[in-house]
Amino acid sequence: MKQFPSKESIISADRRIQPYIHRTPVLTSDTFNRMFGAFLFFKCENFQKVGAFKSRGAVNAVFSMDEEVVSAGVATHSSGNHAQALARAARLRTIPAYIVMPRNAPQVKIDAVRNYGGNITFCEPTLKAREETLKQVIEKTGATEVHPYDNYRIIEGQATCALELIEDAGAPDLLLCPVGGGGLLGGTALSANYFSRKTEVIACEPEGADDAYRSFKAGRLMPSINPKTIADGLLTSLGKRNFPIIMKYVKDIVTVSDRSIVEAMRLIYERMKIVIEPSSAVPLAALLENKVNVKGKTVGIILSGGNVDLKNLPF
Amino acid sequence: MKQFPSKESIISADRRIQPYIHRTPVLTSDTFNRMFGAFLFFKCENFQKVGAFKSRGAVNAVFSMDEEVVSAGVATHSSGNHAQALARAARLRTIPAYIVMPRNAPQVKIDAVRNYGGNITFCEPTLKAREETLKQVIEKTGATEVHPYDNYRIIEGQATCALELIEDAGAPDLLLCPVGGGGLLGGTALSANYFSRKTEVIACEPEGADDAYRSFKAGRLMPSINPKTIADGLLTSLGKRNFPIIMKYVKDIVTVSDRSIVEAMRLIYERMKIVIEPSSAVPLAALLENKVNVKGKTVGIILSGGNVDLKNLPF
Repeated sequence: MKQFPSKESIISADRRIQPYIHRTPVLTSDTFNRMFGAFLFFKCENFQKVGAFKSRGAVNAVFSMDEEVVSAGVATHSSGNHAQALARAARLRTIPAYIVMPRNAPQVKIDAVRNYGGNITFCEPTLKAREETLKQVIEKTGATEVHPYDNYRIIEGQATCALELIEDAGAPDLLLCPVGGGGLLGGTALSANYFSRKTEVIACEPEGADDAYRSFKAGRLMPSINPKTIADGLLTSLGKRNFPIIMKYVKDIVTVSDRSIVEAMRLIYERMKIVIEPSSAVPLAALLENKVNVKGKTVGIILSGGNVDLKNLPF
Repeated sequence: MKQFPSKESIISADRRIQPYIHRTPVLTSDTFNRMFGAFLFFKCENFQKVGAFKSRGAVNAVFSMDEEVVSAGVATHSSGNHAQALARAARLRTIPAYIVMPRNAPQVKIDAVRNYGGNITFCEPTLKAREETLKQVIEKTGATEVHPYDNYRIIEGQATCALELIEDAGAPDLLLCPVGGGGLLGGTALSANYFSRKTEVIACEPEGADDAYRSFKAGRLMPSINPKTIADGLLTSLGKRNFPIIMKYVKDIVTVSDRSIVEAMRLIYERMKIVIEPSSAVPLAALLENKVNVKGKTVGIILSGGNVDLKNLPF
């Protein structure tokens, strides 16, 4: 089995992507510090390019490929933030991006990918159709698949988020991170291990999509079946490259209810005056549910993104 | 007539209030810069203490008073951000704050003032009742009235916002600012005059509450009668201390429709991922309506606050 991404590969990713992404701010809130008796540092990836941390991995993947390989383009199936992030990264390197999207994807997401110059191929809205269509696109174009999370270059890119947080706010006692496919969590766990050994990484997951929690407790991958949560960025199941990193370097995984996620989301809008997507609220929901002991500790919290339907806020 | 606040009085206010307020960040947006062909710098008072620039003036007023006068407390009639800001400033100086509020004020605003330790006296929801009740409260307590905008200490405090913007983002060609009573606008115009002579200040006002526009064009104070706008922070009419400052140092006043305000508000949530109140969106609405020529210019925009009913966003 291939080695985990190294410390050097994350430092390289950090250097590689810097010209193309925002170094997002770290915000604090006196209200939340008082509320939880802790020192919370929020890493604001909602302010990132394309509105989510996904820009980091996508840029790293596209810009670390050799010229002769990458010139045929990159491809993925996605209707979410990864599709936009990959289309944007490809345009920055002036190569084509082929995006397979389900026919029923929201128009706003289709438009966003088109705005970044992505070539969209529509398919039936099933995982099977998406994978088969992607295979056909790749055969026809010679493009390279860039998986949204089960890919070491992606994991290295996402790792730069925790690296920046550690550099800008100091090494925290705890680092809280939402988990879906495990790209962000895997990268966060590696960065904590390499750059801040005292930091314990705790993953936070919706109850309705708790495959990471169950897999972590069982010690083997147990994919989600019909996951359901308001945190639509976390519906995916853990990737096979992500899982062993998480087993090794994540201290614990806790789950939270959708009700707490909505409450945490509302609190962040109301008190911090920032726009986040439900997935970003999952770590604060874990504090509301007393699932993590943060008393007196310094706590980094990754707000993963801010792409939300403003006409349908859940509170 | 008393002189306008001096350069030195604004520098003193800046030094006086610094321990008690946030130095709020200045954000930029590539999307908006491309959209308008300009370089926009957003001064984020939505991140300010109490969620609005009002904290600046209130702290300056309370902390610049002599001990023997201030110990009897401060008083105002307000159901908005000034009431909370004054209650907070008074608590910081451990003196009482007496707030007269209309009986029908929203519970959330009543709770907020109480949370800052304010003593509330309720009255009938008319301006006459508010003024008479305030007079009674002051007679009984010996407290000093702190008007929300028609007060030089308040104007000096609000002036520190533009001063910080100029220090942190450089002297802009234009400074755009919403106008209600003229506390923020008066302070902004003075700071531009003292600290950045090349900067032209342009006030932006809702069509439905256009007393500043009409007064500016007529050269005499013309109060609003039954103003109506979604920008509820801008319903008040210009103060008599504010008007001459504005006549002297503001370059122009433009008006915008509520429809453009809502559109600008949505754009700021969607693109900048921050929560603002409608009043904050008025300057960007002026750009959407092509009311200000910003092409190729550096433009400071003051986002005045972020206190909004999240359950009733207008888009």
